[in-house]
Amino acid sequence: MPSSTSTTSFSQNSFTIVLLFVLLISFFPGAFHYIYTLPFTFLYPRSQASDPCAPAATTITTTPPAATMSWAQKQFTLPPRSRGSYLVTDHVVSSVPEIRQYKVGLLNLFVQHTSCALSLNENWDDDVRADMSDALDRIAPEAGPKGEDLYRHSAEGSDDMPAHIKSALIGASVTIPIKDGKLATGTWQGIWYLEFRQVKHTRRVVATIQGEKA
Amino acid sequence: MPSSTSTTSFSQNSFTIVLLFVLLISFFPGAFHYIYTLPFTFLYPRSQASDPCAPAATTITTTPPAATMSWAQKQFTLPPRSRGSYLVTDHVVSSVPEIRQYKVGLLNLFVQHTSCALSLNENWDDDVRADMSDALDRIAPEAGPKGEDLYRHSAEGSDDMPAHIKSALIGASVTIPIKDGKLATGTWQGIWYLEFRQVKHTRRVVATIQGEKA
Amino acid sequence: MPSSTSTTSFSQNSFTIVLLFVLLISFFPGAFHYIYTLPFTFLYPRSQASDPCAPAATTITTTPPAATMSWAQKQFTLPPRSRGSYLVTDHVVSSVPEIRQYKVGLLNLFVQHTSCALSLNENWDDDVRADMSDALDRIAPEAGPKGEDLYRHSAEGSDDMPAHIKSALIGASVTIPIKDGKLATGTWQGIWYLEFRQVKHTRRVVATIQGEKA
Repeated sequence: MPSSTSTTSFSQNSFTIVLLFVLLISFFPGAFHYIYTLPFTFLYPRSQASDPCAPAATTITTTPPAATMSWAQKQFTLPPRSRGSYLVTDHVVSSVPEIRQYKVGLLNLFVQHTSCALSLNENWDDDVRADMSDALDRIAPEAGPKGEDLYRHSAEGSDDMPAHIKSALIGASVTIPIKDGKLATGTWQGIWYLEFRQVKHTRRVVATIQGEKA
Repeated sequence: MPSSTSTTSFSQNSFTIVLLFVLLISFFPGAFHYIYTLPFTFLYPRSQASDPCAPAATTITTTPPAATMSWAQKQFTLPPRSRGSYLVTDHVVSSVPEIRQYKVGLLNLFVQHTSCALSLNENWDDDVRADMSDALDRIAPEAGPKGEDLYRHSAEGSDDMPAHIKSALIGASVTIPIKDGKLATGTWQGIWYLEFRQVKHTRRVVATIQGEKA
Repeated sequence: MPSSTSTTSFSQNSFTIVLLFVLLISFFPGAFHYIYTLPFTFLYPRSQASDPCAPAATTITTTPPAATMSWAQKQFTLPPRSRGSYLVTDHVVSSVPEIRQYKVGLLNLFVQHTSCALSLNENWDDDVRADMSDALDRIAPEAGPKGEDLYRHSAEGSDDMPAHIKSALIGASVTIPIKDGKLATGTWQGIWYLEFRQVKHTRRVVATIQGEKA
C-alpha cells in the first residue's frame, strides 16, 4: 500500500518538525516573541534615533539661540486607585500636552507622596502589573512569616509601613527623554503608577519639562 | 481501500496541526490574546501623536530671555552617621541656598558613594526610618537564614555587600522639582540619607540645579 | 518494499539532525542567538557612535556668547550580554564624547527596555557584580521556596517576570552630574548595566545631556 506508507512518512516528518519546534522553544523562550514582533519592526520602524540603519549622525547636539530653551512645569492628579499597578502613559501624555512642543528634552514626573511610586515597565500584559504588586508584597510584607509584627510604625494601618518601603525601593520619580515631541520610550515601555495603600488616594504629580522647543 | 487510506492521512495531518496549535498555546498563552487584539491595534494605534486629548490651554510654558536660564552646581557633605535612615531636608536646603533664586527648575542630588543612598520618604515619624533600615536588612541580609555565607565580596566587612545591594535598590540620586524658590515636595515628603555601613562615613553630595531664575 | 525503507531512512535522518541540533545547542547555548542575529548585523552594522575606535564625528561648533546653554541627545547600544551585572562606564563615556564639552550639566541615561536596568555601583571588584545578580535572584526568584509557581505572566520564560521586577527595583535610568567635562562620580562609582534575561539582548540607551558648554 504505497499511499499508506507515504502517509506514515508525512506524519513522521510532521512529528519531527513539531519536536524540533518544541526543542527550539524550550531552549529559547524569547525566540517566539522576537519572531512575531519582527514584521512589525519592519512595518513601523522606530523613530530615526532608534533606527539602527541611521549613520553616526544620531548626535543632535544643539547650540541654539537662547529663545528656544524652555521650561514647562505643571501639576496634575492621577485617577484615584486602590492597591495595584496601573499603566498611566496615556493619562500623562494627555495631561502634559506640552511634550509635543519639545524637539529635545527631559520630562521629570514627581509624585508628592510617600506610599505610592512611579516607574517604567511592560505596557502590554495586565498580568505583569498584577504579578508586580504581589512580588512587592513578598519583598515588603505586612507581617512576618509566622504573622508576627515587623514594624514600629503601625498607627496608620498595617499596609502603611510596607507602602513606605515599596516607595523607597521603586522611587517617587521618573525622568524620561523627549525626542521630536514624543517620549523616547521603548516599544514595550509604559509609565506605571504603583499604589501601595488599600484605600483609594488622589495622588498629585509635578511634571517638569526642560528642553529645546521645535 | 484508497478512500479510507486518504481519510486516515487527512486525520493524521489534522492531528499534527492540532498538536502544533496546542504546543504553541501551552508555551505562549499570551499569543492568542495578541492575535485577536491585533486588528484593534491597527484601528486604534497607541501612539502619542494620535492622542486626541490636546487642550493646549493648560500650558504654563516658559520661553524666557536667555539671561534667566541658569545652572548651579556645588558639593557638600552630609553629617557623618552610622547605619540608619536620616532626614536631611533642612541640611540640604541650607547647603544649597541657591534653590531660592529659581522660579522653576530641578534639583539633582547625587551621592558619590556606593554603600549609602538618597531617597524621598515620610518626614514625620522617626519609627518609619527605623523600620526602613530593618526592612532593608531583611531584603539584603548579611547572612542566609541558617547563618551561611551569601557573598563572595566580604573583604570589607559583612555589612559591605548588603550595603551595595541596598544602594542599588534605593539609588544614589534624587531629582526634585523646584517651584517659586522652594522644593515642590509633598506635605509628608522629606529627603532621606540612608547609611548602610556600621562605621561612620562622611558622604559627599553633588547638588546640581538647572532652571529659570526669578 | 522500497518505499517503506526510504521513509524509515528519512525519519532516521531527521532524528539524527534533531539530535545534532540538541547537542549543538546544549554545548553552545549562545550559538542560536548569534545565528539568528547574524543577518541583522550585516544589514544594520553598529553605529559608529558606539564604536570607541571611531573618531568623534560630533562637530564642536563655537558657541555664541548668549548660547552657551545646550542640549545633546543620542542613542547607542550596549554590548549584548546574558544575565549578569556589567560595568559600562568606559563604553558610555566613549559613546557620548559630548560630555567633555560641558562645563556643568547632567547626563541622563535611559534604557528603552523593561527587563534590564542601569545603576551606579562599585567599580572595582567583579565579585560585587556577581553577588548583586545573585542577591536580586533571591529578592525576585523565578519560583517559590518549594518550587511553586509565583507568576501569572510566564509566557516569555520563567526569567521574564523576575526581570520586570528587578527592573522596577533598580530602575531604567540614571542621572549623573557633569563637572568640567567629566562625570562627577565618586572614586569607587561606576555605571552598571544589569541584564536580567538569560538570552542575550542588544539594549538601546538614550543619552541626554543638558548643560552649559565650556
